[in-house]
Amino acid sequence: MKVLSISTGGRTDFINITARVQAAARELGVGEGSLTVFIPHTTAGITINENADPDVVRDLTTALERLVPWRGDYRHGEGNSAAHLKASLMGSSVRVLVSAGRLQLGTWQGLFFCEFDGPRQREAWIGV
Amino acid sequence: MKVLSISTGGRTDFINITARVQAAARELGVGEGSLTVFIPHTTAGITINENADPDVVRDLTTALERLVPWRGDYRHGEGNSAAHLKASLMGSSVRVLVSAGRLQLGTWQGLFFCEFDGPRQREAWIGV
Amino acid sequence: MKVLSISTGGRTDFINITARVQAAARELGVGEGSLTVFIPHTTAGITINENADPDVVRDLTTALERLVPWRGDYRHGEGNSAAHLKASLMGSSVRVLVSAGRLQLGTWQGLFFCEFDGPRQREAWIGV
Repeated sequence: MKVLSISTGGRTDFINITARVQAAARELGVGEGSLTVFIPHTTAGITINENADPDVVRDLTTALERLVPWRGDYRHGEGNSAAHLKASLMGSSVRVLVSAGRLQLGTWQGLFFCEFDGPRQREAWIGV
Repeated sequence: MKVLSISTGGRTDFINITARVQAAARELGVGEGSLTVFIPHTTAGITINENADPDVVRDLTTALERLVPWRGDYRHGEGNSAAHLKASLMGSSVRVLVSAGRLQLGTWQGLFFCEFDGPRQREAWIGV
Repeated sequence: MKVLSISTGGRTDFINITARVQAAARELGVGEGSLTVFIPHTTAGITINENADPDVVRDLTTALERLVPWRGDYRHGEGNSAAHLKASLMGSSVRVLVSAGRLQLGTWQGLFFCEFDGPRQREAWIGV
């Protein structure tokens, strides 16, 4: 298992970790098969989406904030329940196929670590 | 493959199955690698979220009900379309890394079976 | 890895690909274990939901459109930001257990390719 350290820069922050996951896949020696990228947090998640136009990430985070506002009818004392729900909506892991040691992704796809309660020091775990 | 039997207690009910999945991983003999927990239902799902403060689960289920109300512009004759959508939003499976026979989870993470049309007798399937 | 070609028929279109994934599993020779169905697009996803009453899919797509309207406060120049978010909400892959060469699914479950910016020619990738 490989561990990536990720520094997030805002309450909400989507960070493209595709190149770092690709490097970890090589270090793990994954040739053919698939790997899992798992996020060990409950107010952060991971998703695969467009890696080209940064407006896509801006639109994703804005629309998620509209769906699940930071302030609402929440009881959890830490006040970050919106972040918990967004984490579950995006998901705690992605699975990526690997061939000849390379992540198999569509042209426009990138892997994004999704911070919903930052800024914090976070991790992503990569295993087969 | 191991099968867990799960009795849910309300229309919506999140049940922490982490310890039972850990026991199944041992029975399956998973040492290093990862496993899948798959939910064979269309009005229930699974997610990973906070295992400490029960208010988090209360806030998750309340916010999901606000997003996808039980009553709405639905045609499906059984009247449980909201449960079908919530199941797809949470997802039908989670993938967890395993090392030395132990599920690799963050400090606050637990695996929650997500009932959206209970109470019912349900299952979770665990495989590698 | 097997590649399925999928022609979608509307802006939003859920297509049941269960039988084609089952056939691919056989061609890949998956006996016992699990497989991944991965969608290499950023405005399409995949989910597992009811395969019986087509009103369920109609209700899912209608409720998703209400949650994430096509028109909104979006900046992305292509105008399809709603499709990007819906793709992340459904997810880019599903994991299915396999036993004796057969996909292990609940009685009512089917695998649905989820088009959110069609009609287009699309793909689903199947690997172990």
